Amino acid sequence: MIIDCHGHYTTAPGPHSDWRQGQLAAFREGRPSPPYPAINDDQIRQSIEQNQLRLLRERGADMTIFSPRASAMAHHEGDERVSGEWARACNDLIARVVGLFPETFIGVGQLPQSPGAPLDSSVAELERCVTELGFVGCNLNPDPSGGRWTSPPLTDRYWYPIFEKMTELDVPAMVHVSSSCNPNFHATGAHYINADTTAFMQFIQGDLFADFPDLRLVIPHGGGAVPYHWGRYRGLADMLGKPPLNEHVMRNVFFDTCVYHQPGIDLLFEVIETDNILFGSEMVGAVRGIDPETGHYFDDTKRYVDKLGLPEADRAKVYSGNARRVYPRLDQALRARGL
Amino acid sequence: MIIDCHGHYTTAPGPHSDWRQGQLAAFREGRPSPPYPAINDDQIRQSIEQNQLRLLRERGADMTIFSPRASAMAHHEGDERVSGEWARACNDLIARVVGLFPETFIGVGQLPQSPGAPLDSSVAELERCVTELGFVGCNLNPDPSGGRWTSPPLTDRYWYPIFEKMTELDVPAMVHVSSSCNPNFHATGAHYINADTTAFMQFIQGDLFADFPDLRLVIPHGGGAVPYHWGRYRGLADMLGKPPLNEHVMRNVFFDTCVYHQPGIDLLFEVIETDNILFGSEMVGAVRGIDPETGHYFDDTKRYVDKLGLPEADRAKVYSGNARRVYPRLDQALRARGL
Repeated sequence: MIIDCHGHYTTAPGPHSDWRQGQLAAFREGRPSPPYPAINDDQIRQSIEQNQLRLLRERGADMTIFSPRASAMAHHEGDERVSGEWARACNDLIARVVGLFPETFIGVGQLPQSPGAPLDSSVAELERCVTELGFVGCNLNPDPSGGRWTSPPLTDRYWYPIFEKMTELDVPAMVHVSSSCNPNFHATGAHYINADTTAFMQFIQGDLFADFPDLRLVIPHGGGAVPYHWGRYRGLADMLGKPPLNEHVMRNVFFDTCVYHQPGIDLLFEVIETDNILFGSEMVGAVRGIDPETGHYFDDTKRYVDKLGLPEADRAKVYSGNARRVYPRLDQALRARGL
Repeated sequence: MIIDCHGHYTTAPGPHSDWRQGQLAAFREGRPSPPYPAINDDQIRQSIEQNQLRLLRERGADMTIFSPRASAMAHHEGDERVSGEWARACNDLIARVVGLFPETFIGVGQLPQSPGAPLDSSVAELERCVTELGFVGCNLNPDPSGGRWTSPPLTDRYWYPIFEKMTELDVPAMVHVSSSCNPNFHATGAHYINADTTAFMQFIQGDLFADFPDLRLVIPHGGGAVPYHWGRYRGLADMLGKPPLNEHVMRNVFFDTCVYHQPGIDLLFEVIETDNILFGSEMVGAVRGIDPETGHYFDDTKRYVDKLGLPEADRAKVYSGNARRVYPRLDQALRARGL
């Protein structure tokens, strides 16, 4: 079984995205949000069958851990109420995808974060996602200001309410920023990768996993710059008087395989333990083209992983075992289906 | 000949750093800056002989392109006048190091940048560094706000005066941030690497080198996250309708070898053309310890490069030829010495 841990609903039906534009326009004009539009099952089915489902089948994967479009979370837009409405609309739509394709998709929720706002509504929405919608995790934005980086680091007590709820529900988070309103940072070319690197270094500096020994966080995009600079991070941990990374951070932190060329995947597997790597592609995402050097989609990461020729036990971990361990509610759902 | 393109004077004599503290205290209290202290040649000699010079010899390199301590530039402190005094003091000290060890060090200047300030004083200081102090380049901080990222991207016309002066003087810049006043970003573990990645993506998005075809920029720390995500950047350039990276960016952009483990260096040389890689170590810098896995200093990058077993012509490029091409005034200085 092959589980892609990193998929976003980037192809959601037009009325859903249109409503978001209407919601933000209403916010700017001080009007109440427009009513959410009717979207029928066929619209959803089509948007999935022609995209994610088609590619999953073509590439030979079985399942995707599926969440709302990351770049559209845009927590820096509107306010806490606006983020709340938007997160619920996005999560409800994911729940409908899962309802229509229960064997292929399982949900991960968007949180209604807002710069400077407390995390109470995120805690409540996470609980709703898990207990009512059957979701198995959430995406946590370390920078709801969208490239201004005005929140405290992830190791700050500001974030503890969501970590407490995640621990209680036994669900992980993917640390994932959204779009950038800072012209310095291209969203998928700079902000995403920077956030991954930044979060990892915050975990080195802090001692978060002493307080939350069971917390599990997935850093996407192959861990940002971290594996390439693994020596730097091992050395910085040492200079900061921290334990080795495998004790201090890597019991709780996992990287996906969203690295879009063979040499990057080779490096990832050379320096990071197999137990810490989850197969992911973020397909129909940041990089949608075909690599002229290979003739295949840049984001067809399964090809790169297959090329590694991993021993069967490692391959099973990367393609499904690690995901089932990091997302225990996914494991429960699969077991209930006899898988 | 082996030239290290990336060295900072991290071991400057105490009175120099103490003066900076006094200068900032005076600024906060609205007093004029204290007089710069007397520092004698022996203090400078000692600070170099026991550190950079000793390690250069131990590691078998010949020369370092040497600039003021990057993390101490702190352009976000004080104001334009304060940055101006500090840059001149730092550059004059580098000139003294070069005067004492002319065969081993050649200077690169710190610019008196300040958030929101125009670049006139940086242009003037660059001219002074090159024409009066004999320097061969400068360090350009893409984020003088120190982690707030309030300046426009490097492709914006705001930066053009310094690029014009660099072109006129035929000197390159290393794109190098300083310390971070944003608690999200550890300086050497996040801010440095993020800035490298960010700058590269800005160059993809923009068209800077159409306006400055002869401009040369060194992105340090092995290009941040870029080589690890080389497929992502090739794919993003394609999605943005830009020419391939080797035409669009890599005629003007170079990476150093400040990557502190063998697998990272292996990847760098696998994906980046040898013509674009300059040997560098940033030694006595961010990561000063010994790697327990190898028994050698993390930042002894020459060991990793040597292990590649490059063909002699490529080795010569990485260790000296590329540096002499990117820093033509260094080449002239070496030729004048018959080298």
